[in-house]
Amino acid sequence: MAQKTQIPKGTRDFSQSEMLKRNYLFDTIKRVFEKYCYLPIETPAMENLTTLLGKYGAEGDKLLFKILNSGNFLKQVNTEDIDEKNLNALALKISEKGLRYDLTVPFARYVSQNRNDINFPFKRYQIQTVWRADRPQRGRYREFFQCDVDVIGSNSLLNEIELIQIADEIFANLKIGCIIKLNNRKILSGIAEHIGESEKIIDITIAIDKIEKIGLDKVISELSEKGISETSIEKLIPILKLSGTNSERIIQLKNILKNSEIGNQGIIEVEQILTLIQSFSMNSEVVLDLTLARGLNYYTGAIFEIVATDMNIGSICGGGRYDDLTSIFGLPNVSGVGISFGADRIFDVLNQLELYPKYLEKNIKLMIVNFGDEVLLNSLQLLEKLRKENIKAELYPDSIKVKKQLNYANKRNVEYIAMLGQDEIANNLISLKNMKTGDQHKVNFEDLLNILQK
Amino acid sequence: MAQKTQIPKGTRDFSQSEMLKRNYLFDTIKRVFEKYCYLPIETPAMENLTTLLGKYGAEGDKLLFKILNSGNFLKQVNTEDIDEKNLNALALKISEKGLRYDLTVPFARYVSQNRNDINFPFKRYQIQTVWRADRPQRGRYREFFQCDVDVIGSNSLLNEIELIQIADEIFANLKIGCIIKLNNRKILSGIAEHIGESEKIIDITIAIDKIEKIGLDKVISELSEKGISETSIEKLIPILKLSGTNSERIIQLKNILKNSEIGNQGIIEVEQILTLIQSFSMNSEVVLDLTLARGLNYYTGAIFEIVATDMNIGSICGGGRYDDLTSIFGLPNVSGVGISFGADRIFDVLNQLELYPKYLEKNIKLMIVNFGDEVLLNSLQLLEKLRKENIKAELYPDSIKVKKQLNYANKRNVEYIAMLGQDEIANNLISLKNMKTGDQHKVNFEDLLNILQK
Repeated sequence: MAQKTQIPKGTRDFSQSEMLKRNYLFDTIKRVFEKYCYLPIETPAMENLTTLLGKYGAEGDKLLFKILNSGNFLKQVNTEDIDEKNLNALALKISEKGLRYDLTVPFARYVSQNRNDINFPFKRYQIQTVWRADRPQRGRYREFFQCDVDVIGSNSLLNEIELIQIADEIFANLKIGCIIKLNNRKILSGIAEHIGESEKIIDITIAIDKIEKIGLDKVISELSEKGISETSIEKLIPILKLSGTNSERIIQLKNILKNSEIGNQGIIEVEQILTLIQSFSMNSEVVLDLTLARGLNYYTGAIFEIVATDMNIGSICGGGRYDDLTSIFGLPNVSGVGISFGADRIFDVLNQLELYPKYLEKNIKLMIVNFGDEVLLNSLQLLEKLRKENIKAELYPDSIKVKKQLNYANKRNVEYIAMLGQDEIANNLISLKNMKTGDQHKVNFEDLLNILQK
Repeated sequence: MAQKTQIPKGTRDFSQSEMLKRNYLFDTIKRVFEKYCYLPIETPAMENLTTLLGKYGAEGDKLLFKILNSGNFLKQVNTEDIDEKNLNALALKISEKGLRYDLTVPFARYVSQNRNDINFPFKRYQIQTVWRADRPQRGRYREFFQCDVDVIGSNSLLNEIELIQIADEIFANLKIGCIIKLNNRKILSGIAEHIGESEKIIDITIAIDKIEKIGLDKVISELSEKGISETSIEKLIPILKLSGTNSERIIQLKNILKNSEIGNQGIIEVEQILTLIQSFSMNSEVVLDLTLARGLNYYTGAIFEIVATDMNIGSICGGGRYDDLTSIFGLPNVSGVGISFGADRIFDVLNQLELYPKYLEKNIKLMIVNFGDEVLLNSLQLLEKLRKENIKAELYPDSIKVKKQLNYANKRNVEYIAMLGQDEIANNLISLKNMKTGDQHKVNFEDLLNILQK
């Protein structure tokens, strides 16, 4: 009996036309990464759960896809495990591997595991799928791609600058207008110090990170709820409201944070980055955004976020500097900085704004109509000659009605149709039809090649 | 506390130098696929277990990686499930998804699910990872790549020919010497008919498929064990021992199988393929091999297998025609033919025989030595100008000892080193060092560009 055929919720098939578009996106990203001398690595889809658990918070642990042990997975299980309904403990008894949740933890594991073979500073990129058992919804998938680019083992701010340039060049190549937002975790620490709430730095950054989404008022309520005093909040508001150019805000901020060593250090870093960036011809504006915090706790220096200007879709790229990512795997004091491109959101922007180059549609140059066995050898010889010239060409495999063959070619976006009947063969010519214009005329092989190679 | 960091058994990380090699392999394969007008699709890593189970035999079912349901996976479980230790039934209560085991079943599922949108004949390729809970051993992994190319929805033998050409061109491009073995399942049926054992065709093909591995004698014992009579075996042996050129063996075979309709049909198909193939300039020999059976039961017509001639590693590519792959998913009578490239074995051949092109190692063209803040802007400007010309260049991010910087560049296989000190800047020159020859001299920007673009 025939089965119902469905893919799991939250996952996607990619059709040929989608793949052409996705490959365009990934190839554009890779080309820029490699021009800046970042090279790829890949890690396995599965990691040991000991590697993954505890790295993404309790919520993240729940979203890990766990893989049932093969063989007798009940080996360590007894009936009490079931009665107690202690799912987490039981899950670990019957599964020891999970699917990767992001590329950051596998990268940290990779660096730690291969520390003796790695040539630091290590400039790597990684484009792979990740899996999260999130509730599927529009634009949120259980299997999706991440594109990460990082350099690890160098404290130099030149790395931050290079990553900004990479993002700028990628979005320029993709024709996506965007703003690059910059902040520094040290400035956020300085602000926490200044308002007298140093120990609440995490709560403060989490709250102000939401300012664009929920607005200043709700951020203030959240800060109150977290126990930040009214005096502190009053001291914070003018900082969040600072206005003017980057330089103007930096001057004001320097004055406000003059007594915070860490705050000043952050300001100096931001200033250096913004100054050096000015010497490059950038496509996007780089803006100091003091409300940019990014939720992740492992950032210690610069933080970035890139938003598209022509579509309201949130952040399409983000990252920052982390000073201690690999220490959890036994390799302390290795500073790194990286950014991650949100491939699925960028894909949405490209689709929505129709930013694909025209050539993507034209993937197949020529189809030879199949007129049956009598002219088959001639057709195959023509095909072979064209393929020797690297022309993407094919012969329709069956000698069915010409109309059906043309219909197939049309749906397939074939650019040209070649017809090779007895007449054409006798005169050493080929009837060539341009499928877009409908133009049709007879050409010899040399002309054909010229047209197809144009 | 620092954790032990290990990847799961049977999985691999791919380092940057391995990725360069693997990308060379995959890019070579993709380029040929696309030249022959096959386009990519991708399917999700996870499929519903209902899609996967029962497609690979009982042994295959055991090798599926199953994914623990998220949330309360014990919902449908009671203590008796545990007591009974009925692992298979329990596994299905706590997991509804599995990782794909090959690309064939997901492809069949895809074609069936998208039948209304697909333009038949559907020429697709698919290069993705698959997972099997096999016992890991040398050269056998739990996560590995498959590269499949298929055309579905056409009965024409031109498809078989095209796939042979594709394989031939790919291995020629990779500089891997090989032999293309061809057989036809219908000939095998004809042989079974001829020896009077039609109903044992599966046992017969499975046994003779092993002839290269275990030898004729052991195949004969296996046939006896399966209940094939001595008379039948005696009739079979001369067929397995046929010798001579393709044409010579075809003539003898025609005579032997003259009373088998299906056998004759198979011979005609093989003859047509071999005749047409002769009109192309092929790199590899195509050999009719009557002992070629391939284990999979779904093949119905042509079967292929490709073996490397310069390394004893078994089949590196194989496939065949299947007439009913999608019927299990409710789409009957769609004939297809496809081949699958064994990426990991091909990778082993490339590595063992060192068949990589020289340019692969030369990935980074130039590194600028970092001489500190005083010349930083000049260095960055030079870097920007080079990258505008699409030169893969970088500036060492920290101004550490030059020796250390050169050591880094050397390990990274950088081709040239640029040094830009006060002297060079004053004279508008760049000191350029060829890292391979050790040559060093001063050049202006134009010369630099000429050298790097050579």
